Amino acid sequence: MRSDNITGISPQILEAIIAENEGETTAYGGDDVTKRSEERLREVFENRELDAFNILTGTAANSLIISTLSPTFGAVFCHRNSHINGDECGAVEFQSGGAKLIPLEGKNGKITPDTLEVSLETFIIGEPHHSQPSVISIANTTEAGTVYTPEEIFALSNIAKKYKLKFHMDGARFANALVKTGCSPAELTWKVGVDALSFGTTKNGALGAEAAVFFNGCEDGSFAYRRMRSGHLASKMRFISTQIIAYLEDDLWLKNATHANAMAEKLYQGVKDSGALKFSFPVQSNVMFTEMNVGLKDALEGAGFKFYTSPAEEGVSGRLVTAFNTDKALIEDFIKVVNDYK
Amino acid sequence: MRSDNITGISPQILEAIIAENEGETTAYGGDDVTKRSEERLREVFENRELDAFNILTGTAANSLIISTLSPTFGAVFCHRNSHINGDECGAVEFQSGGAKLIPLEGKNGKITPDTLEVSLETFIIGEPHHSQPSVISIANTTEAGTVYTPEEIFALSNIAKKYKLKFHMDGARFANALVKTGCSPAELTWKVGVDALSFGTTKNGALGAEAAVFFNGCEDGSFAYRRMRSGHLASKMRFISTQIIAYLEDDLWLKNATHANAMAEKLYQGVKDSGALKFSFPVQSNVMFTEMNVGLKDALEGAGFKFYTSPAEEGVSGRLVTAFNTDKALIEDFIKVVNDYK
Amino acid sequence: MRSDNITGISPQILEAIIAENEGETTAYGGDDVTKRSEERLREVFENRELDAFNILTGTAANSLIISTLSPTFGAVFCHRNSHINGDECGAVEFQSGGAKLIPLEGKNGKITPDTLEVSLETFIIGEPHHSQPSVISIANTTEAGTVYTPEEIFALSNIAKKYKLKFHMDGARFANALVKTGCSPAELTWKVGVDALSFGTTKNGALGAEAAVFFNGCEDGSFAYRRMRSGHLASKMRFISTQIIAYLEDDLWLKNATHANAMAEKLYQGVKDSGALKFSFPVQSNVMFTEMNVGLKDALEGAGFKFYTSPAEEGVSGRLVTAFNTDKALIEDFIKVVNDYK
Amino acid sequence: MRSDNITGISPQILEAIIAENEGETTAYGGDDVTKRSEERLREVFENRELDAFNILTGTAANSLIISTLSPTFGAVFCHRNSHINGDECGAVEFQSGGAKLIPLEGKNGKITPDTLEVSLETFIIGEPHHSQPSVISIANTTEAGTVYTPEEIFALSNIAKKYKLKFHMDGARFANALVKTGCSPAELTWKVGVDALSFGTTKNGALGAEAAVFFNGCEDGSFAYRRMRSGHLASKMRFISTQIIAYLEDDLWLKNATHANAMAEKLYQGVKDSGALKFSFPVQSNVMFTEMNVGLKDALEGAGFKFYTSPAEEGVSGRLVTAFNTDKALIEDFIKVVNDYK
Repeated sequence: MRSDNITGISPQILEAIIAENEGETTAYGGDDVTKRSEERLREVFENRELDAFNILTGTAANSLIISTLSPTFGAVFCHRNSHINGDECGAVEFQSGGAKLIPLEGKNGKITPDTLEVSLETFIIGEPHHSQPSVISIANTTEAGTVYTPEEIFALSNIAKKYKLKFHMDGARFANALVKTGCSPAELTWKVGVDALSFGTTKNGALGAEAAVFFNGCEDGSFAYRRMRSGHLASKMRFISTQIIAYLEDDLWLKNATHANAMAEKLYQGVKDSGALKFSFPVQSNVMFTEMNVGLKDALEGAGFKFYTSPAEEGVSGRLVTAFNTDKALIEDFIKVVNDYK
Repeated sequence: MRSDNITGISPQILEAIIAENEGETTAYGGDDVTKRSEERLREVFENRELDAFNILTGTAANSLIISTLSPTFGAVFCHRNSHINGDECGAVEFQSGGAKLIPLEGKNGKITPDTLEVSLETFIIGEPHHSQPSVISIANTTEAGTVYTPEEIFALSNIAKKYKLKFHMDGARFANALVKTGCSPAELTWKVGVDALSFGTTKNGALGAEAAVFFNGCEDGSFAYRRMRSGHLASKMRFISTQIIAYLEDDLWLKNATHANAMAEKLYQGVKDSGALKFSFPVQSNVMFTEMNVGLKDALEGAGFKFYTSPAEEGVSGRLVTAFNTDKALIEDFIKVVNDYK
Repeated sequence: MRSDNITGISPQILEAIIAENEGETTAYGGDDVTKRSEERLREVFENRELDAFNILTGTAANSLIISTLSPTFGAVFCHRNSHINGDECGAVEFQSGGAKLIPLEGKNGKITPDTLEVSLETFIIGEPHHSQPSVISIANTTEAGTVYTPEEIFALSNIAKKYKLKFHMDGARFANALVKTGCSPAELTWKVGVDALSFGTTKNGALGAEAAVFFNGCEDGSFAYRRMRSGHLASKMRFISTQIIAYLEDDLWLKNATHANAMAEKLYQGVKDSGALKFSFPVQSNVMFTEMNVGLKDALEGAGFKFYTSPAEEGVSGRLVTAFNTDKALIEDFIKVVNDYK
Repeated sequence: MRSDNITGISPQILEAIIAENEGETTAYGGDDVTKRSEERLREVFENRELDAFNILTGTAANSLIISTLSPTFGAVFCHRNSHINGDECGAVEFQSGGAKLIPLEGKNGKITPDTLEVSLETFIIGEPHHSQPSVISIANTTEAGTVYTPEEIFALSNIAKKYKLKFHMDGARFANALVKTGCSPAELTWKVGVDALSFGTTKNGALGAEAAVFFNGCEDGSFAYRRMRSGHLASKMRFISTQIIAYLEDDLWLKNATHANAMAEKLYQGVKDSGALKFSFPVQSNVMFTEMNVGLKDALEGAGFKFYTSPAEEGVSGRLVTAFNTDKALIEDFIKVVNDYK
């Protein structure tokens, strides 16, 4: 339960890699498999004109996309607890050559239109002493495990438009947000004003494959060079691309996310009345933040469960994450330990 | 009253420039005048071993010093309203190649030990996902016009030591802080744990001259190259250096700051009971933030006073700044306009 | 024959990936597989104390290593036709925050001690107007397909020592150089003065896996952060690490390179007397640069052979690359086409 | 004779600074003096529409202009011995966030159209492995003291156009080139295809003032932010601007350069037949590179002359520089020492 990164590879994706290991093809993404992966993404987003670039990690996708959308002296608005602000070692600041992250507070890991606008108003547009507002970046699913509704995204993108910001979405757990909201990929992105998406597959069953997806023609022609010079153009790209194709095939991605979300929900339902485990945020995806006392933590660890913990006001905070292949029996065991604990 | 940057040059400093315009000397700081300016700084700081580098602007001093003290993946703690965070267009992020500013809240423009420590505790030292805490940067005089006491600085530097942070002070208005606290330069810097100082002279009477001052041997040999490659090594350096010498001569700097502070105090005393002008922070230097209604603002502007304003909750916020050459009569006129206003 | 990047995955390596897809483990390289891959590298280099970091691409390895070894104002000496100078879109300049590549001429893709020293003498050490010499980077196998002998490396590293440069080797085709020289890994690296190696496996049979290897304690503690913030810390790292282990197991890497080199040698021997194909450099690895007239090029392409071409003084220049899995029959067909051509 | 940077300030410029020290005005370049300096530049360039930004040093002007004209993954073509390549500590690489300088050989410090085109042809436009050609930068006067004719510039700019490069000119000694060619400022810049000029005044009599001048609307709106965040927006800008106005007033700049050039010519004519001093390049401005034996060097130094020397094939290479205020008698003494030497 530590992370969706600790799981292995979805069998269908592994099979695709194995199948791809026949014959030869062009290196560095000039191959047919890569073209097909881009076409598949286009279809998935309802044939919207888009530019897609396969890439190796989520941090690379986030920082390269934002660097493409923002001038080097831009201000990038994000949630204070977002992955780009707290867990990427300054990747955006580095890749962009000095853009500034503006951390915003917000309940349940989400930015509200009000907070965004209040922060934007403190910047003086056109005044060289100030970093210039350029991008808003949200994550859906958020780092807190919560999910933005399309209405919430639309409200933020309206402000983005008013201030001429580009709108980026970190979709490391995009499939989990789709499943939760019941939206189509388009309904959760370009139809509500999203300009660019870090399309993640690794946390939901791939070996390692992400895509930077730009809608609305907002890629300025620099991304391919940025990807190369930062070392993110895989030489044997077709093994990345084939993962993305398999991920989308027969709705594998949605099936995987549906299972992960369901396991989280099962866990939540099983323990919510126990009193022993408190949930810090609404449970809306496969990521849950909980608070428990040290005794329960010890009991869970004693029973073999592993999860990240950090000090909390009372006891400890524990992050619980389910995945595409989490065993139902494991959840039931977990529930039992919690409910047996007194 | 708009700014201490709008004033001209202190007569003694201008005379030094004129006197320097005789004969020839070595370019790029290899000259005797520059050596003397460094020696003078050493004396002023009680012969503490230090490395001093003359430089052209305060933003350059701040960003180059911090880049020297911090790894490129460092986290730099500063007040949310500090100049480096809000008024230098991302200079630190740029010069350092991606270090991250961590903006802290704090009353009266000051960081407290508690706030600093709470923020530091959220970073995981040695974990590559997180920017690594590297520097704390305060300004004395602060951007709010308030002044840190040596005790306050010492309390912060103790935490800095505990977390192995370097301690930087933005001294764009260092002289005003000295005058306010009655401290010696050493007492307000290295004796209370400051590692590096942006020693400003421009706002207090120079044409344009700053010095980056490193105590405790914490300059790693890179500063001279950083200064050059960022275009801040003046070819005719002696004209910068001579300003610094004249600035320190016969305590000119302290006399200038004493006058500027006194004019602010006079203004404050003259209007504090009027009810028409509220002071946002304690008046401790030559910078005052006030709130007034639009009518008073119009009256003041009608009388020829100029100052920066921004929208405030009620009426407008106005920044008032006195300088080394502010005329007492001007202050008296100002007081009169305020007190006559109803 | 286009590239060793167009080939697939060595069966043993693919099997290792499949086998690894069982159970769960820690993400981001904190797992046992990753530790084992580091230990294996240590053994391979005769138990030399070393720091190894698995990474995703060769460009990432090169640019991150050099950025770790060089100050941001450093001068990095390399061959004019090296991969880092001509084929990585400025990756070193970008990652290092502005270090300068100094391109050197040299026959057969190699730098000579004389050329290096002559170039070094034009730099003024300690003078801030000049980028400061910091690193020499060679590739072995070179971009021309030639191989440095240990004696040649030692001669360069002696000059590096004299000028206090760090010594980096781009080992994208390191195994091919080992096979050609008959040296052990240690004999071609730290025993002759190499400080850091980009240890490549992708071109010689892996899906995508490289390692940054530092000898002599010359990693300063920054690499892990640099890797993360540039997006090169794989979340499911164990699938990278397992490739490296399989690559080293039972000398797979040397067997693969032996085959690739042998196929190149076979091709060379088969056509060298034809007169139709001229070799631009000595054939010493699996990469050959040739010159041919347009008719021969057309004949080869007509027979189904693909290779990169560029305009040459007479006719075209064609790069021919063999790989771990190049079929002997293919080489024989190639030879036949060339010898049949008139 | 060491440098034109060791001289002082032209009296008219110093007087302008003194005169400016009256009253108050807006800080950071929002003042009337700065506006006037921009208008004067416009007039000087025959009322061409242009964007001018005053700035503090030549290195800043060069690197900020090129960073504005080039994408961060661009390739910038320059002479191997140019100031930007050899004497600015990697300023362009740093400011641009990783652009690559491509050093070109060329007689007398000048790039020829052939060399430029041959180098350009090795780049593959649109291929992400390669830095993309973006800017050509020449200096006029060159670092060798030679001067490009308008025809030579036009020939280069034609190639620049063909390859869609922007054309930058480092004009640290622009006035000397004007005087030598007899051209108007427009004839030596935008009329022959120059897009941007580092307009230098410091070496020709100012205290410290440069301007970045963009023709043809090729400034993209980023310069003001780049200048600020790199610390080059002077707070008391009017003291920079007034220097530029005085520099242009009554053709002071051309008079100063005429004198400097004449003193160099006088020196050259006085010693060219001596046999003791050889000139490495044609003497065309105020900068001369000479070769002499050690005895003559000692004799000159013994007579009080100072100049930069470096080892040469036979004896030493000495750089001799005259300035706006070089005394004719000094030149005569110099000539005498040379001619008396045997």
